[in-house]
Amino acid sequence: MSVTQLLAGIEGVGRDPKRGGYSRHGFDRAELELREWFVAEAERRGLAVRTDRNGNLWAWWGQPGPDAIVTGSHLDSVPGGGAFDGPLGVVSALSAVDTLREHGFTPTKPLAIVVFAEEEGGRFGVPCLGSRLLSGAVDADVARRLRDPDGVTLAEAVAEAGLDPARLGRDDEALSAIGTFVELHVEQGRGLIDLGMPIAVADSILAHGRWRFRFTGEGNHAGATLLGDRHDPMVPAAEMVLAARIAASEVDDARATVGRLVPTPGGTNVIASAVDVWLDARAPDDARTRRVLDRIREMAAEAVAREGCELTVTEESYGDTVHFDTGLRDRLVGLLGGVPTLPTGAGHDAGILAAHVPTAMLFVRNPTGVSHAPEEYAEPADCETGADALAAVLGHLAG
Amino acid sequence: MSVTQLLAGIEGVGRDPKRGGYSRHGFDRAELELREWFVAEAERRGLAVRTDRNGNLWAWWGQPGPDAIVTGSHLDSVPGGGAFDGPLGVVSALSAVDTLREHGFTPTKPLAIVVFAEEEGGRFGVPCLGSRLLSGAVDADVARRLRDPDGVTLAEAVAEAGLDPARLGRDDEALSAIGTFVELHVEQGRGLIDLGMPIAVADSILAHGRWRFRFTGEGNHAGATLLGDRHDPMVPAAEMVLAARIAASEVDDARATVGRLVPTPGGTNVIASAVDVWLDARAPDDARTRRVLDRIREMAAEAVAREGCELTVTEESYGDTVHFDTGLRDRLVGLLGGVPTLPTGAGHDAGILAAHVPTAMLFVRNPTGVSHAPEEYAEPADCETGADALAAVLGHLAG
Repeated sequence: MSVTQLLAGIEGVGRDPKRGGYSRHGFDRAELELREWFVAEAERRGLAVRTDRNGNLWAWWGQPGPDAIVTGSHLDSVPGGGAFDGPLGVVSALSAVDTLREHGFTPTKPLAIVVFAEEEGGRFGVPCLGSRLLSGAVDADVARRLRDPDGVTLAEAVAEAGLDPARLGRDDEALSAIGTFVELHVEQGRGLIDLGMPIAVADSILAHGRWRFRFTGEGNHAGATLLGDRHDPMVPAAEMVLAARIAASEVDDARATVGRLVPTPGGTNVIASAVDVWLDARAPDDARTRRVLDRIREMAAEAVAREGCELTVTEESYGDTVHFDTGLRDRLVGLLGGVPTLPTGAGHDAGILAAHVPTAMLFVRNPTGVSHAPEEYAEPADCETGADALAAVLGHLAG
Repeated sequence: MSVTQLLAGIEGVGRDPKRGGYSRHGFDRAELELREWFVAEAERRGLAVRTDRNGNLWAWWGQPGPDAIVTGSHLDSVPGGGAFDGPLGVVSALSAVDTLREHGFTPTKPLAIVVFAEEEGGRFGVPCLGSRLLSGAVDADVARRLRDPDGVTLAEAVAEAGLDPARLGRDDEALSAIGTFVELHVEQGRGLIDLGMPIAVADSILAHGRWRFRFTGEGNHAGATLLGDRHDPMVPAAEMVLAARIAASEVDDARATVGRLVPTPGGTNVIASAVDVWLDARAPDDARTRRVLDRIREMAAEAVAREGCELTVTEESYGDTVHFDTGLRDRLVGLLGGVPTLPTGAGHDAGILAAHVPTAMLFVRNPTGVSHAPEEYAEPADCETGADALAAVLGHLAG
């Protein structure tokens, strides 16, 4: 089945009428519907589906592990995200299995398609939550207590989905089954546009952290409170947003973004009592990422002192730079006829698994250069090129 | 019945576990419960209750109008508001009726207690919505189309509450019934603290407007998008927050506040595609308020141009300076033994009605000086002093 046909099967699931695009978050209704769709597609292909302890789905061609060749991605999205980030890797894997079978291929190693849970962290704040739990990169107790914006904990959400929250955490059985992991993903920048190529092999992922800046002050009346009597946390919060841009521009190849900011109580005629600001900061290495963070903290602390407010900063996630296995990378480049290699600023489950097993990624060109937004796109022809490349890679690795 | 006893009857309604304090908004579950409570309290006193075309509640002692002496306030709150802003005026009115009856008073003019709908604009964005509709200060078609944060229109909300949305709008029958209006309210600043007095009579209300600044840019990936490729509306939005403080500080006695800011889509790893920022600006006169607004618009427009974003500004409400009827004010000051007069930065339904009928306000000391926040307070003794003063005023006006 083609990638385009497979994507059409889920195009109606989880649309966000308010933001545009899709809002599909870990264990919410839309994501659960996508899981059911995946199970049905896998079973239609005779793949044996199981859910691991952390809510990741596995569809096996052959007996599960060890030394399995594993491919896949995720089905959740950012709020108001595009149709390709995540699902493209999953449908390309299904399509690649179809292609291999049409060619009469029989794997000599077990082959699996995995769907990781909550890759975007759009609901519980920690990106790559499913792969982090599986590999022990996040503490299970900490994870169980993560809350979504409605106050629901991860423990409650997985229990609602039929999982045992007590069993969340490092899953050596699942991890040891993986011999090699290959994730196909839509590109999230302009690399392949500039190169004029449909696909590439990944080289590295930027170091990446998320921090929550909580500014607290004194809630009060917007009309009756004199300017001199104010301790308005919105003011240092705004200065911190600008500090993020300044700090990132001072460090080579760094990025810092505030995309989420929530004032409490959030009334038009109310001076906020607190403002939560989430910082997403990335750079090519740990030292540069920390330099960006430190500079923002410093400027935020100055702003807070001027307004008579207070600030606490909490690290919600951090991952150091990922350099994908160079041997595997070079084999894939050769196998695919000399496609280019690209670094990326986006995080992926493959980046988490790279600390444990040989891991590679394939990128498919995104002609808008836009991602995490409804404008994200991939041409059908490029999608088929990607799926064919994935079939070739899986055939090579599992053959 | 004492003010404290009456307030105890609603202390459990509409608590906001997330923000603290109370969230009671026009026609939501909490506000509807408060309406039922008010109807029961009024009927227990033999007052005849009717709901007018705009959802304001009227409890009549004697035949409805004309030349009625009307008192009252509102039961809705800002998000996470205090227990006194609004309800204190309603319970003081009920308590004042009890006091007048205990003293064997019989009004020679009709007397009514009114509860205005959605005074804070916490749900539909326009403050004093009930009194604005009643007096024609807001166009009924515009009002019907107002939406709450969930996208529900005012027309839908009032229909749900059993009203006919087609009948919203200027209500000459209700308006012509009012001979004099007196609203008691908790003070929302520090005037009475500084004077060391429990109550005051209002002098004036600042000019006050609310504007929605909508910054639009290009939603994109927070990791993969280079700084130079960004059109991030959060950056000019942050500059506008700071511009509000600067502009207000340049104009005597002006205030400008951003308490509500909503990025779309609002993901941590997503450059926003749009940011809505609500500006609340007030000053002693129209010219100064407009000067603050113009300066903020100018700075916001510069910031928008620098980031390659766009900006639209929509006026959501505006009310010029209110000077309460000086003759009525001076009579009340004399009647109450020379209590002080105070201007206020806070808006009130009394300010809307002042354009149509002789109107006065009584303020009760707030020992925290904080309002629109859970810390808002009034001492029981000051509340009783306020209710006794209101009883004296009503007895004088309706006697």
